[in-house]
Amino acid sequence: MGRASDNSVNPAVLAAEYAVRGPIVQKAQQLEKDLASGAKLPFDKVVYCNIGNPHALGQKPVTFFRQVLAALDCQGLDGAFPSDVVARAQEYKGSIRGGTGAYSESKGVYVLRERVAKGITARDGIKCDADDLFLLDGASAGCHHIMNVLIKSADDAIMCPIPQYPLYSAALTLYGGTLTPYYLDEEGGWTLNVEHLKEQVASARAAGKNVRALVVINPGNPTGNVLPDENLTATAQFCADEGLMLISDEVYQENVYADGKKFTSMRKIVHDAGLTDKLACLSFQSISKGYYGECGRRGGYMELTGNWDEGIKDALLKLASIALCPNLAGQVCTSMVMDPPKQGEPSYELFSKERDDILASLKRRSIKLSAALNALEGVTCNAADGAMYCFPNLTFPQKFMDDCVAAGKVPDAEYCSRLLLATGIVTVPGSGFGQKPGTWHYRITFLPSEEDIEGVAIKLADFHENFMAQYK
Amino acid sequence: MGRASDNSVNPAVLAAEYAVRGPIVQKAQQLEKDLASGAKLPFDKVVYCNIGNPHALGQKPVTFFRQVLAALDCQGLDGAFPSDVVARAQEYKGSIRGGTGAYSESKGVYVLRERVAKGITARDGIKCDADDLFLLDGASAGCHHIMNVLIKSADDAIMCPIPQYPLYSAALTLYGGTLTPYYLDEEGGWTLNVEHLKEQVASARAAGKNVRALVVINPGNPTGNVLPDENLTATAQFCADEGLMLISDEVYQENVYADGKKFTSMRKIVHDAGLTDKLACLSFQSISKGYYGECGRRGGYMELTGNWDEGIKDALLKLASIALCPNLAGQVCTSMVMDPPKQGEPSYELFSKERDDILASLKRRSIKLSAALNALEGVTCNAADGAMYCFPNLTFPQKFMDDCVAAGKVPDAEYCSRLLLATGIVTVPGSGFGQKPGTWHYRITFLPSEEDIEGVAIKLADFHENFMAQYK
Repeated sequence: MGRASDNSVNPAVLAAEYAVRGPIVQKAQQLEKDLASGAKLPFDKVVYCNIGNPHALGQKPVTFFRQVLAALDCQGLDGAFPSDVVARAQEYKGSIRGGTGAYSESKGVYVLRERVAKGITARDGIKCDADDLFLLDGASAGCHHIMNVLIKSADDAIMCPIPQYPLYSAALTLYGGTLTPYYLDEEGGWTLNVEHLKEQVASARAAGKNVRALVVINPGNPTGNVLPDENLTATAQFCADEGLMLISDEVYQENVYADGKKFTSMRKIVHDAGLTDKLACLSFQSISKGYYGECGRRGGYMELTGNWDEGIKDALLKLASIALCPNLAGQVCTSMVMDPPKQGEPSYELFSKERDDILASLKRRSIKLSAALNALEGVTCNAADGAMYCFPNLTFPQKFMDDCVAAGKVPDAEYCSRLLLATGIVTVPGSGFGQKPGTWHYRITFLPSEEDIEGVAIKLADFHENFMAQYK
Repeated sequence: MGRASDNSVNPAVLAAEYAVRGPIVQKAQQLEKDLASGAKLPFDKVVYCNIGNPHALGQKPVTFFRQVLAALDCQGLDGAFPSDVVARAQEYKGSIRGGTGAYSESKGVYVLRERVAKGITARDGIKCDADDLFLLDGASAGCHHIMNVLIKSADDAIMCPIPQYPLYSAALTLYGGTLTPYYLDEEGGWTLNVEHLKEQVASARAAGKNVRALVVINPGNPTGNVLPDENLTATAQFCADEGLMLISDEVYQENVYADGKKFTSMRKIVHDAGLTDKLACLSFQSISKGYYGECGRRGGYMELTGNWDEGIKDALLKLASIALCPNLAGQVCTSMVMDPPKQGEPSYELFSKERDDILASLKRRSIKLSAALNALEGVTCNAADGAMYCFPNLTFPQKFMDDCVAAGKVPDAEYCSRLLLATGIVTVPGSGFGQKPGTWHYRITFLPSEEDIEGVAIKLADFHENFMAQYK
């Protein structure tokens, strides 16, 4: 009696993959529960090096940001805070109608966007207009919106780096579009090769694809590199020549460690190259990264610069409206990240010490981890110039490769899985990001604390040595 | 030189409509800017009655919730708070790895889900399992996820009430599905008619549609009604018989004002009717409504009860993973809304006074506004038993109707537009929610403060009298 339910699932959802929270992470969560129930494992804790989640690994929040949030959320705390915290909170209270508990304009509160615009203008020396900004519940939300607007069918394609942050491939799969890959040049420090870009766009077009945009991630994820200006300029010129929107993921813009390297925003590159009228540029920033690491707050922005079609802008605004608004605390935090305390203000000394200590420590850890990886047999790793990750290249013994083929296993996933079972260290196999065929990698964050990173390096080395010994 | 950009937009995004933030609201924002620049208009402020956004209209946040949030976000404030605030914050600090700045499990922090489960269990007297809960960035996020999972093509249909909250129609349009309407019975207090449901599902199936789920909104939005248990039971039985998932939007569950009316959750209805094995039930709750009104926080949950297919659950989890996690402050607030201070605890007295005052005031305002509307010529309005809205039915003069036809205007949209221009009061035309053909309505929230609601009622009456006089 009764009609049976149809339990079918949208095949696009079935097909979407997001390795950063994929099967190895699910296994790790299970192991953690087992440990908690008293199971005996070769390690006593699981170390989540799969994701850039700094606070979860012990990084402390920036005091100024949290004080302003608390002063805004809760009455009567002003006496507990420095005067610039109180002043910032007062200004925001006066201009956020209903405070942090009210829906705001869909693009975010105007005064908060003005603060972000001020910070961008100061960073680049090129004026930013608050009207060009959409505040976001993390950059991910903006990625979903632009994909939803651009993708009409599988004929629409977006060029993405390989390796790439798998949010792009997941969103493309969910919205039914096509990923046109371009390979980053590992030997050249994970740079883009314009000749290769031309070949890839031409071959996608020859296959009937309507290539609409190109994604650049700088500083790189999972690759941890920082792209030189001339490489960015050549990429922007390529997009202008080919009529492609340029989507620039800049969420690690404050995570640059290598001497002599610096971050340049794509909007500045486009401006300085005189390309402002020749392409649409979309830039993402997030409060989840940098020295702030406010992942759980969910905040960020996207900025629309260059030459935008009004219809596309309207469509982005409509999607923002359907989502009501980004969370207000995230909006507030985004405004502070882009316009933090200034020299001479009461909070500046503590703020700058916290920021500098975190960035200096990240730099030390990046050097320690990449050195440890490079010391291993068959492993090479570009220096982590920026971001939060090392992405070592592994040459596996032939016998291991043969075993994997025979067992139907993906070699880097198998390696990461064994690493987890032996050490409790959670990593993401290179196959989750894409990689040049025949190469194998994994992504590991260097976010564990200075005390812990040493232990991670030792465990990685011990595991790798045993692993290689098995195949001698 | 250079290839022209393709500026086409996904037609699903072009087609999606969300009247709650539609053209009348955009006009209102423009008028507000005009006022700020010194323009002379027939009113001196814009009153946003288009959306349930309590804090923006002066409602104060609940102190306990905000104190716990501040204590969690910011170190060193414990001395400023009652002991139960400190205890709650301590417990959360001990069990949220990395605090509010860290990504959590995709479904939300387990201890927070346990608190929500405890509250649901207490509400219904039926055990809730934390594993069945997904915390959300507002209920909207859950609506998107379930639509994304269920909709494969325009052949897949979801039954929605008419009038409906337009998030459902917007999401269905975005994901390319079909809305199979069922009309609520206005004369019967906006109840569901099962014979009519049967006709609608049969005719959708005859047209080749694969009807997958039915949406119920209780208390009603935009209709402000509270459905009786027997109507809910009959609806659940209908879904079980027809193999439909039952999606129950219960975000106004604490907004019940009418004497003799009460909210009953659909999970309890399903349980008590012995239907647990016979259908999948998805329930939404939000922190944006109730007496809390934390719209800008973006929090809520969905609970999966009854008989769920594992594949659908896995797909929901995958989408949650791709979105990383709901914002932590929203998660924390959701846990407190569902498990607030208890009698005997230090914060209880203030908490219960704040809650009771807000709900009592909302009740007075609902009565005042619906009485004012019912006093108008050609206007009838069901009592607002719950939620935050009146949804009056308007009988327009024939000459106005003829003018609208001649000018290609939608009568209720034209009425709301003139109301805005004359009074500054922002409402949403019934056509934005759907309505029985030939009937006209608008939605207006009774959230303006007790001082302001009187003025709103007077302005509505003056406007309406002038409007009707024009057509005598």
